[in-house]
Formats: sequence, structure tokens, C-alpha cells
Amino acid sequence: MNYRMILYMMGQIFKVVGLFMLLPILVGFIYGESHVVTSFGIPLLILIFTGFAFTLRKPKDNSVYSVEGFVSVASSWIGVSAIGALPFVISGEIPKYIDALFETVSGFTTTGSTILSDIESMSRSCLFWRSLTHWMGGMGILMFVLAIMSSNDSRTMHMMRAECAGPNVGRLVSKSKFSARILYAIYIAITALEIVFLLFGGLPFYDCVIHAFSSAGTGGFSMYSASIGHYNSVYIEMVIAVFILLFGVNFNLYYYLIIRKFSLAFKNEEVRVYFGLVIGATAIITLNIMKLYDGFADALRHSFFMVSSTITSTGFATADTTQWPVFSQTLLLLLMFVGSCAGSTGGGMKVSRILIIFKSGFKELKYVINPRAVATVKMDGKPVDKDVIRGAVSYGVLFMLLLCCSLLIVSLDKYSIEESVSAVITCMNNIGFGVGAFGPNGGFGGLSTLSKSVLCVDMLLGRLEIYPLIMLFASKRR
Amino acid sequence: MNYRMILYMMGQIFKVVGLFMLLPILVGFIYGESHVVTSFGIPLLILIFTGFAFTLRKPKDNSVYSVEGFVSVASSWIGVSAIGALPFVISGEIPKYIDALFETVSGFTTTGSTILSDIESMSRSCLFWRSLTHWMGGMGILMFVLAIMSSNDSRTMHMMRAECAGPNVGRLVSKSKFSARILYAIYIAITALEIVFLLFGGLPFYDCVIHAFSSAGTGGFSMYSASIGHYNSVYIEMVIAVFILLFGVNFNLYYYLIIRKFSLAFKNEEVRVYFGLVIGATAIITLNIMKLYDGFADALRHSFFMVSSTITSTGFATADTTQWPVFSQTLLLLLMFVGSCAGSTGGGMKVSRILIIFKSGFKELKYVINPRAVATVKMDGKPVDKDVIRGAVSYGVLFMLLLCCSLLIVSLDKYSIEESVSAVITCMNNIGFGVGAFGPNGGFGGLSTLSKSVLCVDMLLGRLEIYPLIMLFASKRR
Repeated sequence: MNYRMILYMMGQIFKVVGLFMLLPILVGFIYGESHVVTSFGIPLLILIFTGFAFTLRKPKDNSVYSVEGFVSVASSWIGVSAIGALPFVISGEIPKYIDALFETVSGFTTTGSTILSDIESMSRSCLFWRSLTHWMGGMGILMFVLAIMSSNDSRTMHMMRAECAGPNVGRLVSKSKFSARILYAIYIAITALEIVFLLFGGLPFYDCVIHAFSSAGTGGFSMYSASIGHYNSVYIEMVIAVFILLFGVNFNLYYYLIIRKFSLAFKNEEVRVYFGLVIGATAIITLNIMKLYDGFADALRHSFFMVSSTITSTGFATADTTQWPVFSQTLLLLLMFVGSCAGSTGGGMKVSRILIIFKSGFKELKYVINPRAVATVKMDGKPVDKDVIRGAVSYGVLFMLLLCCSLLIVSLDKYSIEESVSAVITCMNNIGFGVGAFGPNGGFGGLSTLSKSVLCVDMLLGRLEIYPLIMLFASKRR
Repeated sequence: MNYRMILYMMGQIFKVVGLFMLLPILVGFIYGESHVVTSFGIPLLILIFTGFAFTLRKPKDNSVYSVEGFVSVASSWIGVSAIGALPFVISGEIPKYIDALFETVSGFTTTGSTILSDIESMSRSCLFWRSLTHWMGGMGILMFVLAIMSSNDSRTMHMMRAECAGPNVGRLVSKSKFSARILYAIYIAITALEIVFLLFGGLPFYDCVIHAFSSAGTGGFSMYSASIGHYNSVYIEMVIAVFILLFGVNFNLYYYLIIRKFSLAFKNEEVRVYFGLVIGATAIITLNIMKLYDGFADALRHSFFMVSSTITSTGFATADTTQWPVFSQTLLLLLMFVGSCAGSTGGGMKVSRILIIFKSGFKELKYVINPRAVATVKMDGKPVDKDVIRGAVSYGVLFMLLLCCSLLIVSLDKYSIEESVSAVITCMNNIGFGVGAFGPNGGFGGLSTLSKSVLCVDMLLGRLEIYPLIMLFASKRR
């Protein structure tokens, strides 16, 4: 393995995250929070210095294969989480390091699970940093670095694949670097658009930025304990619900729309199933919860918001779903597993992976019924590559295995089976809330250090889709 | 499809089940229960008459392929369940037909979930019939017919495969009919042995037979609400725990032992993992529950019994596991999914199938880490056939899909998510009890008719391993 190259990539990422830390410092100065000088200044210096130390010399051997891509991503994410947790500790707003680490990992992985019980007491700069981690983690920190740095093409491709979500990431244009740039440009544009829409709703600029960042990463950190329910505004809720749905779509689709390849965009099977699931689930849940609300419109409003927030794994809340009928809760639970589209900022297993797994299951079923029948797995009308099917199925198997192992450890804690299961599922799928003690109002602070550590690993496993972390520990020297 | 042949097989099965009904009638005469004349007499006549009607003419075309095997099994199981429920209704001991059907399906599928709240009030003949359905369903009704009737060999093989549990059923001897006979002979011998062991424990003969039948099918129906805990005898508990473990072993192993092919028996990977899981889980749970009991021995006793009852999907109980630490409950929950060995009477996903799924997942992982590595899935040191892997993986996918669909319907009922999930899992894995309202003391009677119907289908899906039922509705005419 090319360790020097991995360190070099880590260094580049550290420098970029260091520069991003200037933003919360700026916020601190605007709102007169003097603690930012030390609380963000120290980690900023650590990041910049380490970054420069790692990148002093460009490695001579700049070959990068998928292993190097996976390991760079895993080690960088762990590194920036470890250092990104420091502002919370230094400012004293989250005194215990494990809590701060949990919050930061939850941020970068766009999970949105919080250990905070009193969010409103946090300083504005720390709240800003929390949401900024969502934004950076959503599209990928390494992807940002790739978009700005000069690098050879196959290297960029391997790195992008390692960080990007979903079973099959194709390059948009012949040069991968430009793909990264295009994706980030789209990401920035939609985030800006959401800020504008939220400003029209009469929200202060700071609130708009916080919630746009959290929406963009489909993360779920809010600046209020009551989440989006705090505003009690249909307009705000609808804007956010629509935007998180848009952030849950494969970003390639926007690129196809921009270059006017409409047929490519609209024949995308994953996106059609994704919106089909949203519409279907919203309709069914609306009917199911109608008696709890004042008429159809009110039920539809909450149903749409919570379906959108759940399937994209955002975790914003406007309603306490534990009060909903068990049927609706079960439907939401299943949507959590499905998740959003590949190549989006959303979490979960990804619609396309679920589609591939089920299609390959049905293919085998056809084979059992009639061994002479020739069946192939197709997506968007084209046969799916065998490696992609293999990858999707093995991902499903590993996912369930890791879920069971985590569950066993977390079940040593003081919570019920239901709560333990929900904590593990919500972290592995990067959603943000579970049931009972881990409902929409947080509660992860009550976990033991062991459970918090396991859930931190689970969140990283979920966001980076298992392989990078396994590579980091399992790969042999080449 | 060869419908005449399928009807012919159904007819043979109906006649055999009709003859089996003579046993509860005999029990009724011994204990002076006069209702047996009508309550068992009528269904007996229905079975015998339909049986003769279906088998009047031997079909000219006696070709049987796997489709015919699957469909015969599915339709026969549904048929005998529908008629086998009548004694409960006619005797008035279970007045509602859906309840009686649930109880009978639960019996034949060796699930052991009961809708009864007051088991002790049932007549002796009905209790006997309940346990007898476990015994018949355990090794398979069709297998019994195959063992006694003369039939050509490939036909027998296709039929056996359809009813037998597990991913890969090989024939023991060159003639399949003899395989069926050998397996039934072993089954009868071990059942008789358990009766003898229970008699030594001082149990009345009737009790011995009831519990030996329920153990043999790894079913779980007892004649007491308190299940095996009623006797409060370490000897009885240990005898039953050991015997259900033995019934959860692949029966081929006993054949190998009989013909003195010890190496074949002991190098069986599935059996080694199965016993490894039992020993490991028993040890861990013993340590985890020790503070709840009087010392190590007492904890070990309950831990061993419940692990054995859970992994074999029997569902006998000596302890209320809902009072155990969440960690132990979680471990038991995972064991429920694993289940026992292929080719045994136990339920669940089967150890070998889980092994194959995980091995194929890891094989793909190796491939992702190093695409040039050649990895094969091996069991017992030999490469596993591609079709078997395909079958195991597609089984896992279908299992999860059907589980989710059932869960959605059952969640319409009045129970919590946790309870609904446990009801579906316990039925699909043929275990017998879940959590909360569906704990070791039954409680399935409180479900709606819709939920009961869905769970009946789930129990059949679990016992017959999905394909036969799907064939029944999905297969096209050939």
C-alpha cells in the first residue's frame, strides 16, 4: 500500500477542513463570542500544521488504487472527526470528549443524532460548526479536495468511488476532477437556493444558513430542540421537505438536466422508484394518521415532511411519530432502511442497492421455478454488471452482520431491546433519531462510553459504506 | 404442470393423516371423552373420502419435476391444516374457525404459537392431536407418505426436496424411498427414546408422549400454560433440552453414525457451528443472568434450556426471558434467526444457509479488497455449488421481503412495533413465542382475523421455506 500517498491526501484534507474552521470563527466574531479564538483557533492550527507536515513533500510514487482510495477516506474521516470535536471541548459546551466526538462524527456522517439535551444553550459559533460538518460530510470532504487540487485522473476516480455513496458511481465527464467540480457546484447552488427560499419565509439569515447546511447534508442538526417544528410554519416545512428530497436524488441527474439530456435523467429507474416510494408512503400515512390531526391537509403536511425526512435519512422532525399508529411507524422504519438515491447526500442502504438486491433475489427465484429460463438483472433497461450485483449483495450481508454485532454490544447498556435496535439502525443508516429514549429530542447523551464508541463506528460505517473502514484494518501490505 | 399427479399425492397424504386421526380417537376412548366420535370422526371421514376420491385412478402421466413437488407439498399442507382444524371447532374447545386454523397451522409447521389462554381446560384428545400435528409436521407429512408408498425414484426425490428444510438435501442412499424410510425410522427411534427417558423422570405416560411429540417436531406445544416450567424438575428439563438439540441436528448425521461413517459425521461444518453456537450462547447468557438466579448452576440450567429451545425454534419455556437482561434477550433474538441445521425438524433460516450467506458475503468482500484474488465458498472443505449459493442468497432476500410485508399488515393491529415484529419473526421462523403480549404464555388469540391469517401464511412460508407456496400461486402452466 502507498502509505506516503495516503498521508499526502490526509494532509490536503486537513488543510481544507482547517480553512473551513475560519467560518465559525467569523460567526463568533459577528456575535461577540470571544471563546472562538481558542476553541476554534487551536484545532485550526493543529489541522493546518499537520496538513502542511503531511504534504511537505509530494510522494514520488503517486500510484493510487482502490485500496489507497478507501484507506485515505477512512483515515481522513477519522482524523477530522477527532480534531473537529475539539472546539466543543475547549469551549466547555460539551465537556466530555467522547460526547464531543459523537456529536462531530454524527455531524460529518450527516447522521444528526445528538447528545445535547439543551441545544438552545449552545453558542452560535458551535451551532454553526455543527451544521457545517453536515454540509462538508454530505457531499464528501475528500471530494471537495479533489475538486480543487490538481491530480491525475485515475487517482481521482479511485478516491471519489471510495467516498461516494451507492453501488455504482460512474464518472460524469471524461475527467474525474471535473466531475467532482460539477457535483460540488451543483451542491453549492442548491444550498444557496434553499437559503434564498428560507429567507423568503422570513427566517433570520443565520437560521437559514444553519438549516440549509443541515438539509444539504441530509443531516438533521437543528438549532432548536423542537427541530423544524419550532417555526410552526407550513411554508418553511414544505421548503425544507422539498429540498431534502432534492438532496436525496442522485446528483448525476442534475448534471443531465443541465446539459439537457432529459431522457437520461427521466429514465433513471432509481429516481422514479424513490419518488414513487415518497408519494406512496405519504399517501398511506396521511390516511393512517388523519384522525390524529385537524383534517386532511394537516395530516398530509406532517406525513409528507416526516416521510421526506425519513427516507432521506435527514432526521428533522415536525411531529412526534411515536404518537402515530404503529402501522405508520413501521412504514417509516422500513423507509429508513431503504434510504435515498446513490450518489446523493442521503443515507440508508440506497434505493438502487435495494432494487439490485431484490431484483437479483427474484432472478434466482425465477431460476428455481424454471431452471431453463434465462434471467438477467436490469436497471434502467440495461443489464447490471455482475460485480455490481456481487457488491450490493455482499454489502447487504456485511451490513446485517455489523448491525447484529453492534446491537449485541449496545444491548449491554440500560435500554430496552426496541431502543437499542433503533439506536443502532439510526446510526448505521445515518438518520438521526430512533424510538423511545432516542426519539426526535435526542437522548444519545445517556449512553455509556462503550455504546457511544460503537455508534461512532457505526455512523462512519454507514456513511462510508463499510468498505473503507474494513480496508483500513483488514488490508494487507502490498 | 401435472395436476392429476398433484391431486394424487394430496389424496395419499389425506388418507395417511386420516389414519393418524385414529390416535386421538383412541386417546378419547381411554379417557372417556365421548366428543371424539364426532369431533375427530367427521374430519377423519372427510380426509379418507377425499383421499380415496383423489387416488381412485393412478395418473397415466406420472412425471414429477420440482414444480410438481413444490405444489403438492404446498397444497397438501394447506389442505390438512384446513381439515385438521375441524376437531377443535366441532368439539367446541376452540369455537372460532380462524383460531382453530391458526392452532393447527402452528402445530403442523411446528411453530408452537398458541391462541389458547387456558390450556389446562382442553380435553386430552385435543391436546394429543395438537402435539401429534407437531410430530407429523416435524419430519414432514409427505415424507411419511413417500416412505410407505411405492413410487419411482426421481419423483420421490423431487417431493422430498420440496418438503425438507435447508439449502441442500442430498439423498442418503441411491434410492430416495429408502432415504425417506431411514429418516423416519431414525425419527421414530429418537422419539421413542425420549419417551423412555421422560418415563424415568416419573412423568405419566400421556405427558411423556405429548412432550416427546412436541420435542421431536421442535414445536413447543405443551399441556400446561407454564410449559416445561410446570414440572420444575432439572432432570426433565435437561432431557428435553438435550433431545430438542438432537432433533435440531441434520438427520443425515445419525445415518452416518449408524453406518459407522464417523468421519463424515464429525467433519460436518454445520453441526459443529450449531453446537458451537449453543455452547457459546449458553456460556455468555449464564454469566449475564447469574445475578438473577441462585448461583451458577441455576443460571446455567435456565440458560441452557432457553438457548436450546430458542435455536431449535421449539419454544418451550422454563423462564420468563423478558425479565432477563436486554443483552441476553438480544442474543436469543439473533439465535431465533439462525435456527437449527438443515435436514432437521427445527426452524429458522438454518445454520448452513446463514453460513453460506456470510461466506459468500466475505468472498465478495475479498474480491472488493483484491480483485485478482480467487475466492470460493466452501462448506465441509468442499466448494459449494453455485446454485446452492444463489438459492441461499435469494432465500434470504425473499425472507426479508416477506417479513417486511407481513409486518406492515400485522402492524395495523393494536400491538406495539416491538410486539408486531416479534409476532412475525416468531411465526416465520416457526419458534412459538415473541415478546410482550406474545411472550411464553401465548396471547396470539388477541390478534385480529387479518393478522391471524397473515401469520398462518407466514408459518407455512417458514416451514416450507417459501418456494412451495410461491410456486402454488406463481407458477405458469407448462
